[in-house]
Amino acid sequence: MQLHTYFRSSAAYRVRIALALKGIAWDPAYVHLLKDGGQQKAAAYRAVNPQGLVPTLVDGDAVIPQSLAILEYLEERYPMPALLPADPAARARARSMALAIVADLHPLNNLRVLTYLRGPLGQGEEAVKAWIAHWTTEGFAALEQMVEGPDFCIGGAVSVADLCLVPQMFNARRFGVDLTPYPKLVAIDAHCQTLAAFQSAAPGQQGDAEG
Amino acid sequence: MQLHTYFRSSAAYRVRIALALKGIAWDPAYVHLLKDGGQQKAAAYRAVNPQGLVPTLVDGDAVIPQSLAILEYLEERYPMPALLPADPAARARARSMALAIVADLHPLNNLRVLTYLRGPLGQGEEAVKAWIAHWTTEGFAALEQMVEGPDFCIGGAVSVADLCLVPQMFNARRFGVDLTPYPKLVAIDAHCQTLAAFQSAAPGQQGDAEG
Repeated sequence: MQLHTYFRSSAAYRVRIALALKGIAWDPAYVHLLKDGGQQKAAAYRAVNPQGLVPTLVDGDAVIPQSLAILEYLEERYPMPALLPADPAARARARSMALAIVADLHPLNNLRVLTYLRGPLGQGEEAVKAWIAHWTTEGFAALEQMVEGPDFCIGGAVSVADLCLVPQMFNARRFGVDLTPYPKLVAIDAHCQTLAAFQSAAPGQQGDAEG
Repeated sequence: MQLHTYFRSSAAYRVRIALALKGIAWDPAYVHLLKDGGQQKAAAYRAVNPQGLVPTLVDGDAVIPQSLAILEYLEERYPMPALLPADPAARARARSMALAIVADLHPLNNLRVLTYLRGPLGQGEEAVKAWIAHWTTEGFAALEQMVEGPDFCIGGAVSVADLCLVPQMFNARRFGVDLTPYPKLVAIDAHCQTLAAFQSAAPGQQGDAEG
């Protein structure tokens, strides 16, 4: 199995945690999002992933973009350990929380959007920082109410929600967002960070990591 | 089953199509996104959905925000007719395409983001229109390559990908985006519009529709 990845991509980070939890061996194909004007935009990579975004999982003939689609695929092909609760309502809560991050928080603060703010919209770094803080604060306030805790987001065990939360906390710290209003999120993140799968998937542990 | 919905919300539109396809009866709870400063921001609605976004599905004790989480829940509880192909790789392609819309295209052009552009960032209508066109064009160019067609996005039958595409095409037309570069998307949209479930779920057919 091959994963097109970039150490700092929080979407790739989600998938790296899943692969580690399920004990699936994988080979990295590094895509540097800044070098060469962004290697994800190159024709060779667009042939793999027409959106020009990381990650992409390649498993034999299956070529799968989009981190949540990859997590669902891995869950169907390698069910144990599970990344979704067994109870239908709890499964829905786990997916809702994952999507609150994947669909409403992360896409507003990723590289291509910040590049557009700085470029065509002519925004300075103060305005860009305020933009990031605005969406992170709004998103995290909702997440703080959605989580069940104390150790994991939903259902007392690790789920796709934790796989999305931990990389988003990493991003928030990197952008200097104040996390003190979100004690439940901080506690869940701290607990997950004690697990080997989360540790090995961290950006700093990747072969393409930079200081 | 109760759906918190707004006629023009493309996320709610996705769910309305799924409910119609599966023949599930539902009661609407209308949330007007513009009246009263946005009814989705009221405390009563935030108690149902902490994000303050539509849709939310209420099925007995299960309260489910996020359209894709609702679609997965419906698929698990009411498997027929299926909204996902049977083949694992095709299931992944359908989910990837749905997420390319839900996570990368739609969230950049929804009401709260346009409001932020007009407000804190002080952008005029020309810049807002260019923003919408930029992300729609980038997203649709990738989708045009991802779809298999000719009648449906993936796998020769209706799937979650079509449920996400058709409302996004509705949005694109409403914003005046030129769709001629995307003949496959236009053909799939036209075919889906011939189906009763897509017709009954359309914004103009809802009880809260406005001219």
